[in-house]
Amino acid sequence: MTDKIQIGGIIRNANLSLLGVIGLPDRPGSARLVMNAMGRRGINVEFIAQGIGEQDRANLTFCVSKDNFKDALDALRQDVAAEVEAIVFIENVASVAIFGPDFRQRPAVAASLFEALAQADINIRAISTSISTVSCIIDNDRLEDALVAVHQSFELP
Amino acid sequence: MTDKIQIGGIIRNANLSLLGVIGLPDRPGSARLVMNAMGRRGINVEFIAQGIGEQDRANLTFCVSKDNFKDALDALRQDVAAEVEAIVFIENVASVAIFGPDFRQRPAVAASLFEALAQADINIRAISTSISTVSCIIDNDRLEDALVAVHQSFELP
Repeated sequence: MTDKIQIGGIIRNANLSLLGVIGLPDRPGSARLVMNAMGRRGINVEFIAQGIGEQDRANLTFCVSKDNFKDALDALRQDVAAEVEAIVFIENVASVAIFGPDFRQRPAVAASLFEALAQADINIRAISTSISTVSCIIDNDRLEDALVAVHQSFELP
Repeated sequence: MTDKIQIGGIIRNANLSLLGVIGLPDRPGSARLVMNAMGRRGINVEFIAQGIGEQDRANLTFCVSKDNFKDALDALRQDVAAEVEAIVFIENVASVAIFGPDFRQRPAVAASLFEALAQADINIRAISTSISTVSCIIDNDRLEDALVAVHQSFELP
C-alpha cells in the first residue's frame, strides 16, 4: 500500500466523442483551422492532443461533448476535410485524468497510469499531459473499470 | 487591450527534443511500452500527446530534455521499433504553455493561443491540454518570438 504514488485527485468526464484529423499540413495555422471550425459553431473542445504524423504532417485529436458529436463531425467535413488526408472518430469515449500538484519531479506518474490501465485491459485512445495532469481518453463503457484501476494504483487524499 | 483573455501565466521550457512513434498498435499496453523504454533508462518524459492515427493505430509523441535525445532515440529503436511503423523526431524544440486557473469555461483559450502563434508564423509541432493548461511544442529557435506573441494576445497577472 505504501508504495502507491500520491496524487491530488481524479477528474472524470463521461459521454465525450473523440475526433481526429490525419495528415494536417505541417505549417503555421493548422491547429487554428480545426479549432476555428469548432469555434464558429459554438462547439466547446475539451481535450486536444496533436503529435507528429507520417511524412511530417501532423495528426490532431480532440474531444467534444457527445451532444456535439454530429455537429463537430459535420464541421470537420465542411471546413477541414479538403486540407487533410482523413477524418476519424470514436463516438463514445470518456476521459480519466489524474492531477498533481506537480508531476515534474515524479517521472513515473504517467507510466503508472498507463500501467494501471493496461493491467485492467483498457485501451488508451488518446493522451495529453501538463505539468500537473495526465489525461487518458478511453472507451466510455470502461470508465468505471478505469476508476477502479486508478484507485488501486494511486494514493488519493 | 481590454479584450485580451486573462491567464494565470506562462511556462516555458527550452532545449527539448520531440520524439514520436507512428502506428503504435491500438491495444492495451501500447503507451506503457513506450514509457517503460524511457523509464528503465532513467529518461524523464516532459510532455506526452497520443492521438488516433491511420487504420486505428495510435501515434504517440513526447518530449525529453535535449541532453537525453540520443538515449531516448536509441531506446525507441531498441525496445519499440519492432512494434511500430516509424520513429520520428525533431531534435531542437521548446514548449510554451499557458495556464488557467480553469479553462473549462473559456473555450477560446486554446484557439487564441493557436491564433497568436499562427499570426507570428510559428509552426506548432505538438499540442497537449488539460483543464487548466494548453501546451504547444515549437521549434526551439522560435521560443522568444512565441513568448512575445503570447504576451501580445493574453492578459497576464
